[in-house]
Amino acid sequence: MKILVLGGAGMVGQKLAQSIASGGLGNVSVDELILHDIVEARPVSADFAVRSLIGNMADNAEATRLAALEADIIFHLAAIVSGEAETDFEKGWNTNARGSWQFLEALKQTHEASGGRYRPRLVFTSSIAVFGGPYPDKIGDEFLSAPQSSYGAQKAVTELLVTDYSRKGFIDGISIRLPTVVVRPGKANLAASSFFSGIIREPLNGKEALLPVDTDVRHWHVSPRTAVGFLTHAATLPTSLLQGRLAINMPGISCTVAEQIEALRSIAGEEAVRLIKREPDELVIRLVSGWPRDFDPQRALALGFRADKSFEDIIRVYIEDDLDRSGRLVGATQ
Amino acid sequence: MKILVLGGAGMVGQKLAQSIASGGLGNVSVDELILHDIVEARPVSADFAVRSLIGNMADNAEATRLAALEADIIFHLAAIVSGEAETDFEKGWNTNARGSWQFLEALKQTHEASGGRYRPRLVFTSSIAVFGGPYPDKIGDEFLSAPQSSYGAQKAVTELLVTDYSRKGFIDGISIRLPTVVVRPGKANLAASSFFSGIIREPLNGKEALLPVDTDVRHWHVSPRTAVGFLTHAATLPTSLLQGRLAINMPGISCTVAEQIEALRSIAGEEAVRLIKREPDELVIRLVSGWPRDFDPQRALALGFRADKSFEDIIRVYIEDDLDRSGRLVGATQ
Repeated sequence: MKILVLGGAGMVGQKLAQSIASGGLGNVSVDELILHDIVEARPVSADFAVRSLIGNMADNAEATRLAALEADIIFHLAAIVSGEAETDFEKGWNTNARGSWQFLEALKQTHEASGGRYRPRLVFTSSIAVFGGPYPDKIGDEFLSAPQSSYGAQKAVTELLVTDYSRKGFIDGISIRLPTVVVRPGKANLAASSFFSGIIREPLNGKEALLPVDTDVRHWHVSPRTAVGFLTHAATLPTSLLQGRLAINMPGISCTVAEQIEALRSIAGEEAVRLIKREPDELVIRLVSGWPRDFDPQRALALGFRADKSFEDIIRVYIEDDLDRSGRLVGATQ
Repeated sequence: MKILVLGGAGMVGQKLAQSIASGGLGNVSVDELILHDIVEARPVSADFAVRSLIGNMADNAEATRLAALEADIIFHLAAIVSGEAETDFEKGWNTNARGSWQFLEALKQTHEASGGRYRPRLVFTSSIAVFGGPYPDKIGDEFLSAPQSSYGAQKAVTELLVTDYSRKGFIDGISIRLPTVVVRPGKANLAASSFFSGIIREPLNGKEALLPVDTDVRHWHVSPRTAVGFLTHAATLPTSLLQGRLAINMPGISCTVAEQIEALRSIAGEEAVRLIKREPDELVIRLVSGWPRDFDPQRALALGFRADKSFEDIIRVYIEDDLDRSGRLVGATQ
């Protein structure tokens, strides 16, 4: 089977590629893995063919080119991130919504050209940004999508498209609404949620981290490793189990920033925690105040999606998978 | 003020035009009313200018032309109806979603060209088709939108666009989710819901009506006169009251087909009811089985939207507003 990852150079895309290269994809026999992004994806070594494709999802010709690959399983992770989609309205809508739509349309045309034989599994990474407040204590599976950001609206629009193209039989789609992924390795990105990773990652690397919000902010998280597990599970799940509701809230860990800092303290000590500096940022405070805090993801649990066990575990995943061993792990000697 | 009605030749568009021509639009001083549709709208007589424009919302140039009118209040009622959007996937998505999007984009460009001065009120007629089962006994204001038809998905996508373009300040939008409008005068249309009007309208005109579903089917209704009331209320409501959730479930009357037939019997007698012939249609049965049955529209009620009082009243509105006086009103002499 041929696997295509859109957004294959991104953090989750790269980890997904490594996971497929090393452990496969359920019972799927993988013949080829294609990593597509606007920059060249880092190659992964595997006992099947792996190649990179460079292109922009916002280009109409790119959608046709990608659909012509006739990949059997497609992971659609490509997106302009939340912060950039908010400041560049046109770019966000053009890439995240219009780009996704024209890709679905190209898949439909390939489906029709094949006489209906071609009907790929499409796993679309949506986000809890499709929600907007006010919220109940825990967001249930039947809670409305009322996004308060362009990024969230673009994800919600794409979910609706994925569902309708699937209902009509052009594709076999599923949308998974990821919690905020932490701890992201590397540098901060333009997502407004970037600090959630920063306050763990930077101290573990002996660096100062800025905290733009109050410590009583509660949010919903998943580790990159567990997010990759959601993706591979979604790629191999019988979609008939979804009974037409193809967008699913993923499970996660709900905790406050204070609890995250305590988890960091328990793992890396006071020296690490002292590297977190409070520096209020009104834009981030305003954005984060509208974000979901907690969920009751019964459907996802019934479908076999499994969250991390604790925020400590989320930090441990970062240390095991991403911390630069040559760097200094603050507090590791305590 | 300049008023633009997209879908101005349609049934609700025409009644809205008549309502504005005869009773105005709240405290709004109307200078001009423009009725746009793919066919020429029937003129209405008013003490202000009324004109028709012919064009297709699916054309990109049309969006630019319409936005250039710089209407102060825009009613967006234009749509490919549910039955046709289901059988002609491309036409439905192209007109209902892409056409609406390019119109919003043209309004944004006019807003920007005006230095931010131009920011029209846009009333978008969405539909309860944005919902899909399984349902609670009554659908609340926080129930998810999970459409099971292309038409419903197109309405939901446009709601998301209207909300995000409004949140960014390009327009001042509101989406109202109309119940199924009955009794529609004239001929049956391609909407799968058309029979709900037919089983009342045809017998009142001495004609046979086909009932494609069981009499225990429950659904959610509004009269054309009350739907026009929703539109004019939405056009003059302070949108700050909506607190960012710009798509609102309208109030209606929940009743079964059996109750509708009883209401017809009480108004027009047994002779009328005998004209209803049961003729099961599997496609309609399947579609209708996924439709909402009842709502708890608290937000709309708090915002001052008012439903019809009973299904009998809905029938009386048809008799008062639309029944051809030259025709025979079956049972009127009983």
